[in-house]
Amino acid sequence: MPVNIPTLLPEHLLCIPGVKLGIAEAGIKKRHRKDLLVIALDEGTHVTGVFTQNRFCAAPVIVAKENLANASIRGLVVNTGNANAGTGNTGIQHARATCAALAELFGCEPQQILPFSTGVIMEPLPVDAVINGLPVAVADLNKNNWYKAAQAIMTTDIVPKGVSRQIVLQGAPVTITGIAKGSGMIRPNMATMLGFIATDASITHSLLHKMIRYAADCSFNRISVDGDTSTNDALILMATGQAGHREICESESPEFSQLQEAVTEVAIELAQMIVRDGEGATKFITVQIEAGKNIDECKQVAYAIAHSPLIKTAFFASDPNLGRILAAIGYAGLDDLDVNRIQLYLGQVLVAENGGRAPGYREEQGQQVMNEPEITVRVVLNRGAASTCLWTCDFSYDYVKINSDYRS
Amino acid sequence: MPVNIPTLLPEHLLCIPGVKLGIAEAGIKKRHRKDLLVIALDEGTHVTGVFTQNRFCAAPVIVAKENLANASIRGLVVNTGNANAGTGNTGIQHARATCAALAELFGCEPQQILPFSTGVIMEPLPVDAVINGLPVAVADLNKNNWYKAAQAIMTTDIVPKGVSRQIVLQGAPVTITGIAKGSGMIRPNMATMLGFIATDASITHSLLHKMIRYAADCSFNRISVDGDTSTNDALILMATGQAGHREICESESPEFSQLQEAVTEVAIELAQMIVRDGEGATKFITVQIEAGKNIDECKQVAYAIAHSPLIKTAFFASDPNLGRILAAIGYAGLDDLDVNRIQLYLGQVLVAENGGRAPGYREEQGQQVMNEPEITVRVVLNRGAASTCLWTCDFSYDYVKINSDYRS
Repeated sequence: MPVNIPTLLPEHLLCIPGVKLGIAEAGIKKRHRKDLLVIALDEGTHVTGVFTQNRFCAAPVIVAKENLANASIRGLVVNTGNANAGTGNTGIQHARATCAALAELFGCEPQQILPFSTGVIMEPLPVDAVINGLPVAVADLNKNNWYKAAQAIMTTDIVPKGVSRQIVLQGAPVTITGIAKGSGMIRPNMATMLGFIATDASITHSLLHKMIRYAADCSFNRISVDGDTSTNDALILMATGQAGHREICESESPEFSQLQEAVTEVAIELAQMIVRDGEGATKFITVQIEAGKNIDECKQVAYAIAHSPLIKTAFFASDPNLGRILAAIGYAGLDDLDVNRIQLYLGQVLVAENGGRAPGYREEQGQQVMNEPEITVRVVLNRGAASTCLWTCDFSYDYVKINSDYRS
Repeated sequence: MPVNIPTLLPEHLLCIPGVKLGIAEAGIKKRHRKDLLVIALDEGTHVTGVFTQNRFCAAPVIVAKENLANASIRGLVVNTGNANAGTGNTGIQHARATCAALAELFGCEPQQILPFSTGVIMEPLPVDAVINGLPVAVADLNKNNWYKAAQAIMTTDIVPKGVSRQIVLQGAPVTITGIAKGSGMIRPNMATMLGFIATDASITHSLLHKMIRYAADCSFNRISVDGDTSTNDALILMATGQAGHREICESESPEFSQLQEAVTEVAIELAQMIVRDGEGATKFITVQIEAGKNIDECKQVAYAIAHSPLIKTAFFASDPNLGRILAAIGYAGLDDLDVNRIQLYLGQVLVAENGGRAPGYREEQGQQVMNEPEITVRVVLNRGAASTCLWTCDFSYDYVKINSDYRS
């Protein structure tokens, strides 16, 4: 069961002037399941995105990057049930055909549509089902459909994920709403499985891109469920410019900072929701690495901890078998690491120092922290001023069950 | 259950002139369990070893490396039930005290003893129990005790692991016998959890060291159960020189090649046994990467596949969900990889080419291979002449069970 995700209700997701969403049951993998989402954007909306670094990136990712570079975007189409990844040239043709079909319904150019897919890899996209579903989704377009959209993009997700924020820029209220999906194959490298954030703020395209990179680095690039970087990761930020304030043109302006902070908050909350709903997750783990020489080595240590099956199963068992964390720090690849200078904390409890167990540490203290559903592992390297943190979950029977049964 | 390990019988393990082994139940973690092994070596035996690269390397590893560098070795002492790792200075004192106690019984210097430990990390070694067990183990010393020794070093291993080979050098029969243990926290970087190989061959110390590095690179450095590099890995090679042939002094000699080949075969067989008895393993997987630019990039791809929980759970389920393998190849970190040039084979079956599913591939073919207990994944990168292979296992409910329950 998801770890501490407050129940999302439709009214939690605020609509964004200039953005409409429509859903359909296209029968892509299973019948009677919302599996197709269309997003329509008013003219003048700036759109930007960050995408997976996986070399086997999916056909829709290739097409979306091309279209983003060449056209002003008017629509997005998202299907679940099939990733259209590892599908070669046919996959690219399918993604383009999907864009063309939606463009015809919208009365725009195919290049003005961004396609997205998520689901099983290396199976041909049932493109006819997708195209046949589009008219229903378009007929459903409505600015209040964010909650249904969050449902329509789910795969192994247990709960829909979305969040809204409001800020005031120059006296004008500005709204930001984001939705995301993802539960397994989660170690985003630039973005998550799929995340869509929209705002009615007015901002130049180049600043919008700066903003999404920052937000992704603070959020989706800091989570891991299983260490597997997906072929389909994409995070999209859309700004319709209808809030009524002057366009943000300066990255040094207070308005840019205020908006960036709010967008990043939305991204972090969505990213954390993905971990909390990670496949089989029973614990939400924050891994915090401090006093490293640079951020890269902090990340190396953080990922070694976050990806160790031994550590993740110990968290699942609420077993303070913390020597496993020392082992992971030791093999993280920091060749000149002096283990005698490290402090390891579990929550507030000092567990290890001087290369071994801290004299004051008692197993009961570790046990108490381990019993909590939210746990912070803190490693102080004491060799510099850099720090980082990332979020992950434990490794349970249900992870194995979900991933042994996924296609059946 | 272990995957295709032939039942080891005591008579399978041939004795090595110059080597005696003794076992005791020292009650280190549990009572009535063989948990202490002593090996006595005749004077003149050359000993060499390779050890974990984990920065949190265990106290006995530190002491063993020191002693190997400074003295001619006469004895080894191995305890299970406690790794004496993450134990700081106290741990080092415990390891030295163990050496001193055995040296007294042997009538040699403490520096002539190598200590080894395996078990739980970051708990103090019950050094009194170890020392009190030594006289019993010494009284038990016998050249026919290899099988009991293989049993005495087991932790979560289900079966004892050992293998013997005989070759003839200059008309003299030469015997090689090795034992090993290890089941979880297995991604050796220089060696495995614990492996001990002895021969009565006569060979210089420097050539013996050259040989163990080669053998380790071909064997223990090519296996992974869970990607966690242990704090205690050690592989030791001992040559008593009692076989009666002329000492091997030349690495270009046919005798060196013959012995190296036999030692490497023993090491590979032991390493594969560790994977076959990997925690929760139900499948033995060979990952073969071909036609890469260099060995490092082949290893990167091989480990990405071998460590992906998604791939390992699909193997457990016998589910040919092979898109997950494409995804792992894609995120392995080869930035300039052209995915359209890759071929992916499962067993003999061509699964993917030209960036997608091979036209001739049928799911039934993949299913048939997946149903086997031994599976080869072959990736042809088509960008160079380098290749590598490694051995791993699947990821099952039992892995989670074993590692959630390990300390209880």
